[in-house]
Formats: sequence, structure tokens, C-alpha cells
Amino acid sequence: MYSVRARFQCATLCWELLTDITFADIQAAAARIRGVAKRTPVLTSRSFDKEAGVSAFFKCENFQTGGAFKIRGAANFLYQIPKADLPRGVVAFSSGNHAQAVAIAAASVGAQATIAMPHDSPRSKMEATKGYGARIVIYDRFTEDRVAVGKKLAEETGATLVPPYDHPWILAGQGTAAMELLEEIPDLDALVVVIGGGGLMSGSSIAAKALRPGIRVFGVEPADANDTYLSLAAGKRIEIPPPATIADGLRSQIPGEITFPIVQKNVERIILVTEEEIRAALKYLLTRMKMLTEPSGAASAAAVLAKKLPPEVKRVGVILSGGNVDYEVLAGL
Amino acid sequence: MYSVRARFQCATLCWELLTDITFADIQAAAARIRGVAKRTPVLTSRSFDKEAGVSAFFKCENFQTGGAFKIRGAANFLYQIPKADLPRGVVAFSSGNHAQAVAIAAASVGAQATIAMPHDSPRSKMEATKGYGARIVIYDRFTEDRVAVGKKLAEETGATLVPPYDHPWILAGQGTAAMELLEEIPDLDALVVVIGGGGLMSGSSIAAKALRPGIRVFGVEPADANDTYLSLAAGKRIEIPPPATIADGLRSQIPGEITFPIVQKNVERIILVTEEEIRAALKYLLTRMKMLTEPSGAASAAAVLAKKLPPEVKRVGVILSGGNVDYEVLAGL
Repeated sequence: MYSVRARFQCATLCWELLTDITFADIQAAAARIRGVAKRTPVLTSRSFDKEAGVSAFFKCENFQTGGAFKIRGAANFLYQIPKADLPRGVVAFSSGNHAQAVAIAAASVGAQATIAMPHDSPRSKMEATKGYGARIVIYDRFTEDRVAVGKKLAEETGATLVPPYDHPWILAGQGTAAMELLEEIPDLDALVVVIGGGGLMSGSSIAAKALRPGIRVFGVEPADANDTYLSLAAGKRIEIPPPATIADGLRSQIPGEITFPIVQKNVERIILVTEEEIRAALKYLLTRMKMLTEPSGAASAAAVLAKKLPPEVKRVGVILSGGNVDYEVLAGL
Repeated sequence: MYSVRARFQCATLCWELLTDITFADIQAAAARIRGVAKRTPVLTSRSFDKEAGVSAFFKCENFQTGGAFKIRGAANFLYQIPKADLPRGVVAFSSGNHAQAVAIAAASVGAQATIAMPHDSPRSKMEATKGYGARIVIYDRFTEDRVAVGKKLAEETGATLVPPYDHPWILAGQGTAAMELLEEIPDLDALVVVIGGGGLMSGSSIAAKALRPGIRVFGVEPADANDTYLSLAAGKRIEIPPPATIADGLRSQIPGEITFPIVQKNVERIILVTEEEIRAALKYLLTRMKMLTEPSGAASAAAVLAKKLPPEVKRVGVILSGGNVDYEVLAGL
């Protein structure tokens, strides 16, 4: 258990970079977050299966509290902050879903949240974050460093910084999504998960491998946001320029320090999807399966729908990571 | 059990109008249709609850096979047709969801389906029905009688007519939706269900009253398609002119012969919703709860969102009947 050894140092970005996160940590997270995170449904579609040539089981994090999986990690983090530190509030930097998640988790423990959001975040996400009671600080994603912005805010206010992915508590929380999926559908051949910073993937892959050691785990990135793809090929973390993909949740420029070794260990390979494939999947999920996903959320389904899995994969778990699509993107379809 | 006494007469509209459908019939239907109908999820939303001032539990039939609850009744009917009659096929008349349901159920028993659809059916529903292997025959909803069209088709081909709602087997199948909801959330104060012909409502009200005798049952109709509202006030079945409501699944002009007495017995009152309230609910379910409903499917949520329930109702089950919205309607939002 990392949590015994991890020394929490409030109001800074410093933590021990412990990567020995185990399934027990994910189980502990599941118990901790039960009050705020939902057990989302697993849905299937005969039409999708026929089209894609597989049996797909969709873990619908688009129906999660806050509209994305992020509440799992945020709540697992917030609920472990020492009570004495909560009055100084929490700070996060996020393109949107982590922002909403931190705002909701903060409200549930009575702490003030301050969120640094990039200037081009989807309007719906900014509005929702404000709606949950958070204070928003805007920064320019192309000229300012979000980690520095977040760190400065935390230092100024004494608030605790809640990292978006690169922390054991965040990983362990995100892993509960795959844990629930495998508990419900134990006999999967493969699991398909999008990779932004890698929090969802690293947590999910630990849970999946624990519950079904032989499962094959595939990551998905937009072709334009292929930092993990390049990093795996290079054997080290590679930084890319700010990606312009429609999948705003997957615009990370470099894999996480903690998440990358886990991805290296557990992920068979990264499937790259085009913008067109992402749009097609979003539209398919909406018109045929009646559910709204955001582009980042539809990217995993895009990889399956575009038949980019090995042909021997028949039963595949697909995590739909979120549903907070901007209205303008939706109207564009 | 009606099924012992009901004499099935193929290829005609004649059946015994037995209204003593019991919960046992619904339980039998649930076992019968398990292979083709899904157990749909029950979803909740903190935002919706806050907005509407209740705790709402949405039974998501928009995620059902064929995109609506209709497969429950259609499969329960098709699976009881004598095997000897199946080679002559089945016939149905429907604005869309029943059509798709009959097409799917027919394919699952290897029977050819012929569907009479009104000329102004949503294009998406016509396409989907064809996609399931059915033959489509178009009729004019304003000048032709759909029952006569269906009956003529059945007589010409010797096929079995599958009625859209006014049959014990159909009612019993539709009732499985509320049965599942009450099994999952037993302590509901009220159940809110839309009324077209009354198949979903009559079956659901029987299931709900059996599982929770004190439950209050509310029907919902568009203000423009208020045949059941007027009929309850008059104490007899009243026919209205063809309604123009956006809720194409609720455009019935007169309550069913079998369904009406059950509605009279079990339904406390009908809540009328405006076109604007339906649109607002559809939009809310899509943007906040990330799920696509058709206008008929959103009408039940509209009644709750518009706060038209008695104030003492706190825990309310809401059946979202379907999700097969026409793309043009969606774009219009």
C-alpha cells in the first residue's frame, strides 16, 4: 500500500514518485469514493458489434458524476487530504473534466476549489465548473505552462494542488472504472482505453491485469496527439507541440512520470485514430446507441469501429471516458 | 393467466378482449423475452434532481434493443405465435418504434416482417426498420386508416398481424420495463409513463401496483395528443383528430379498448406537457445527462422537469420510452 508510505506534502507539487500501485489501492479507492462516484452502466449494441465485428462492452463514464471518469481520481485524492489543509482550499489545472471533478469533490468536503483552465476550453465545461461552485482562472494554453500556473496559484493561497493524472491517488481512483467493468464482464479478451496523461490507462490497466492476467490492453491516441505512441517507440517520455485535435481531453504533450512506466509495462500498443474516425464514432454512438460522448470519450470506440484491433480479439471492453462535448462541436456534426 | 384462455386466431385482428392481465403474465413475459430485450440501466442525475426538486430514477428504454421499449411487447407476442404460422410472416402498422421492434423480433424467429408506416415517419426509423430486414409499405396517416391497411396486408399474405398496443401479450411485454425498475428501486413514491395507445402504461401500471401497491401512477400526454386525458374526463374512449405533436410516438387518436380500462383503474391523472416542455427536456437529457431520447421518450421527463407532479412526490420513477429521434429534429435543437 503506497498510502502508508506516501508522505503528503500540502500545497506543493512534491510527492514521492511511488509507482508500486497495486490492485488493493484501487479497491481501497472504490470504497472511498462510493458516495460521490457512480457505478456506471455497461452497455452493448447489436448494431455496433455487427459493424465492428466484435462483442463490445462499453463502460459508460459519460454518465458519471460530472460527465466523465475524472471524479473517481479527484475524489480519491480529495478524500485523503489532511482535514487541517482543507480550509485553504484546493487548486487544479485542467482542460475541463478534471476541473469539474475537483469542483464537485471539493464541494462534497466543503473546500473552495480554484481551477486554472486553458482559454480554449469547451464553454460547456467552463460553465459546468462554475456551476459546481469553483473559481476559474484562465490561462493561455499556447504561451503559459499549466503546471507553473497551478503551482503559483497553490503557493499564493496555501491551497492543495490536485494533479490531473500523475499521482498514485489519482491513478488508483481512475482504475476503479476498469475494475467495475471486469467485475461485470470478466471474460474480456481486450481492454481499450484512451491515453491523455495516462491516468485512466495506468489505473485501468493495473485493475484489468489483476482481475484477468491474460487480458490484452490497447491504448488509443489521436494521430495528432501521439506523445505516448512516440514515447513507447523511443523507450522514454517524448514531448510534442500542443496538439490541435478535436479531442480536447487528450491534448497532453508528454506522458506522466508515474503513468508512463505503467503504460510501458501493461499496454500492448497504441492505436492512433484520425479526427474523421473520432467524429464518425461520436456520431455512431449518438445516433445508434443514443448516448452522447465527447470526442475524447468516443476515441476508444473509434479504434474499435475502424477495426484497428487484432482480428483475434472478440470480446472487448471499451471505456467511454466522458460526455462533456461542447455544443458547437455537437452542432458541427 | 390469460394465455391459457386466449384463442389465437392467425391473420386477423380478432382476439378475445381479455383484460384480466396479471403480474404473473408480466413475469412470464420477462422470462420469454430475455434473449432479445435488454435489462436497461436505471440512471440518476444530481443536476436533474436539483432542478426538478425530486429524486428521479430514469429507466432508460432509449438504450433498449431497437432504441425503444417496443421490443418487449413485440417479442412477447412473436414468441407466442404458433410455429406453423411463422412461414407466412408477420405484419404491423407503426409510426416507427413498433415497426423496428417487430422487424427485430421477426428476424430472431426467422419470419418475414411487412410494416405499414405512415408517410411522415421519422426517416431514421424507416431506415432502421429496413436495416432489420423488414419490407416497408407506406400509407398516408391523414387519409388512410392504419388498422385497415394492416388488416388488408395480413389478409393478402396470410401473415399474422402484430398489434401495436391493444393486446394482452403486448401489454404484458411492455410491463416488464416497470417491473425491472421497481425491482431495482423498490421505494418509489410515483411512476411517470407516457401514454400513446396505452400499452406501456397499462402493462407498467400493473407491474408497479403489484410490486408496490401504494405507488402513485401518472400518465403523460402532449397537450395536442390528449385523447386519454379527454377519455378519462369523459369516462369513455374519446377519439381526437390526428395530432401534430413533435412526439411522433404519442400521436394516437383514441385509447386502446384493452388498455383504457386498465389506465382508468391504475392512473391517478394525466399530466399534459407542451411542445416547448418536451423540447426542453430532450435538450436537458442530452446536454446534462448525455443521453439521446426521442420527443416521445423525453415527454415523461418533461412532466417532472416542469414540476407538474404533486409536491409530496419525492422519489419518482420515470420511464424514458425511446431514443429514435429523427436527425432533423435533433439538428433543430
